[in-house]
Amino acid sequence: MKLASLKQGRDGRLVIVSKDLSRYVAAADIAATLQDALDDWATVAPKLEALAATLESGGGEAFDSNDCSSPLPRAFQWADGSAYVNHVELVRKARGAEMPDSFWTEPLMYQGGSDSFIGPREVILAASEDWGIDFEAEVAVITGDVPMGVSASDAADYVQLLMIVNDVSLRSLIPGELAKGFGFFQSKPSSAFSPVAVTPDELGDAWRGAKLHLPLLSFLNGDAFGKPNAGVDMTFDFGQLIAHAAKSRPLAAGTIVGSGTVSNKLDDGPGKPIVDGGVGYSCIAEIRTIETIQSGTPTTPFLKFGDQVKIEMLDENGDTIFGAIDHRVEQYTA
Amino acid sequence: MKLASLKQGRDGRLVIVSKDLSRYVAAADIAATLQDALDDWATVAPKLEALAATLESGGGEAFDSNDCSSPLPRAFQWADGSAYVNHVELVRKARGAEMPDSFWTEPLMYQGGSDSFIGPREVILAASEDWGIDFEAEVAVITGDVPMGVSASDAADYVQLLMIVNDVSLRSLIPGELAKGFGFFQSKPSSAFSPVAVTPDELGDAWRGAKLHLPLLSFLNGDAFGKPNAGVDMTFDFGQLIAHAAKSRPLAAGTIVGSGTVSNKLDDGPGKPIVDGGVGYSCIAEIRTIETIQSGTPTTPFLKFGDQVKIEMLDENGDTIFGAIDHRVEQYTA
Repeated sequence: MKLASLKQGRDGRLVIVSKDLSRYVAAADIAATLQDALDDWATVAPKLEALAATLESGGGEAFDSNDCSSPLPRAFQWADGSAYVNHVELVRKARGAEMPDSFWTEPLMYQGGSDSFIGPREVILAASEDWGIDFEAEVAVITGDVPMGVSASDAADYVQLLMIVNDVSLRSLIPGELAKGFGFFQSKPSSAFSPVAVTPDELGDAWRGAKLHLPLLSFLNGDAFGKPNAGVDMTFDFGQLIAHAAKSRPLAAGTIVGSGTVSNKLDDGPGKPIVDGGVGYSCIAEIRTIETIQSGTPTTPFLKFGDQVKIEMLDENGDTIFGAIDHRVEQYTA
Repeated sequence: MKLASLKQGRDGRLVIVSKDLSRYVAAADIAATLQDALDDWATVAPKLEALAATLESGGGEAFDSNDCSSPLPRAFQWADGSAYVNHVELVRKARGAEMPDSFWTEPLMYQGGSDSFIGPREVILAASEDWGIDFEAEVAVITGDVPMGVSASDAADYVQLLMIVNDVSLRSLIPGELAKGFGFFQSKPSSAFSPVAVTPDELGDAWRGAKLHLPLLSFLNGDAFGKPNAGVDMTFDFGQLIAHAAKSRPLAAGTIVGSGTVSNKLDDGPGKPIVDGGVGYSCIAEIRTIETIQSGTPTTPFLKFGDQVKIEMLDENGDTIFGAIDHRVEQYTA
């Protein structure tokens, strides 16, 4: 089934969306919010599934992604991995920094802010273009209650829903923050998630081995920017990422775990823009990295006020799975 | 007023506690949970204050801290600063690492996990003593909705409640995580907060300049371990910490901001144990640091299974303000 949260109050109101994203029906009689549903998933999910089946046979109201907040407008946890180690290696290479071998065997993960996500069509607000505003296209899962110390093989069973995400990043603030040793904070403003979250069964064979085997599409001002396959070059699957997060504490239902920026490594080099026949990139930092490696200087600028970012994933028939994150960058003035 | 969450479901049930922590009255008719109250604080707080005034004149039921979860059993954000720069400098010194001058002018802060806090009397679970289990006694505030880009001077006005906290840390996991550059994750298991959260007015003159000017008491297996004054040597006040957190994104109501480990620097040296006439320490890492500086080797071990940690703050009359965090370390077995 497919679920969304229409804008209402702080947590939205839960609706079930038809598979083709054309219609919705309110789920209020079953669970008021998505967090409420996740808190009691074993009981609630079958009821939502039954209602979803009814919706497929007709009825409901017209669905509009513009009415959506992120599926969890605020969450109790947003733990973002960096599972495409190729991406990490490239970024380090551009800086002239060696990457420890351990990065290939133990996931990188940071604790993200989860109190104030923006909606999939809401503007990205930043005070200054000098902050190096960037998007990061990723896949994310929402978990149930995960016990501390879960194994990687068991952990994948706790995936209740999948989404795609724009993990907005402020590149110019990152080096200073990471140098202080405490990880990201100001450099990671509010993320945006897709209009719709879907259960794994909606993905059919594309969801296997705890990876989502489909291209993740990014567009910048209407031009195709990236289409790497999220199932390729993912060094750590979602089971491994969840197990990493749960090593020393349980994870509460509604925890969001992200894949990190999706990135594919080509056989003949470090990746190519789509216009040159490559799969492109899921963030601007990566193309700048490759420009730096190839010519010494990055030429693609980070996002400017007014720039439009779109992130989407299509199924094998070319139909949207999660709806599109599609939003503009604007200046924030207090 | 003083508020607590009695254990019930995932978010507890909100109660008002008498100033002397002897009695409570349910606040369910006003707000079911503390998060609900914070979500609508301007409307709800006056009603809670009125009920609190009634409780002071008598009635209610016997209050027992053992029945409490953390005031927010789960929260949408836990942003922990490190405002006692003395502590940071000491820890670095023991490692032989220089501390950048910027640490005195810009707060250190990490994004903590907020989905699964433990209660003030619940056991600290860890899989292995080899993880270097430590406590960190801190002061924390709960904010209302804070706008992005708020000034440090305005930010203090968004403090709705104060608590004390045990920011449990796994010292042996920290160097590896910080070396990877993404900050703490596995090294910071679930934190515990005091049984009671209090409004700033409950602290009288002890809450001034956005700092809490009272000793924070820590006990290890019944022995006094630390009593540094939380208002002394706090390089960044809570206004500065909140403003730091809100530089690039708004903070949602119910955001918890921590002070970091409370630490006082003595005129004549790096701090002394209480038995030697000093104010002692708010974590084991700090005494180990001083042992390392003084004799080359730390001698105080980290926490063992069965060890008991108590953290409390008393008012000028010697009465407990927040109730005590008082809990034991136990081995976690899946």
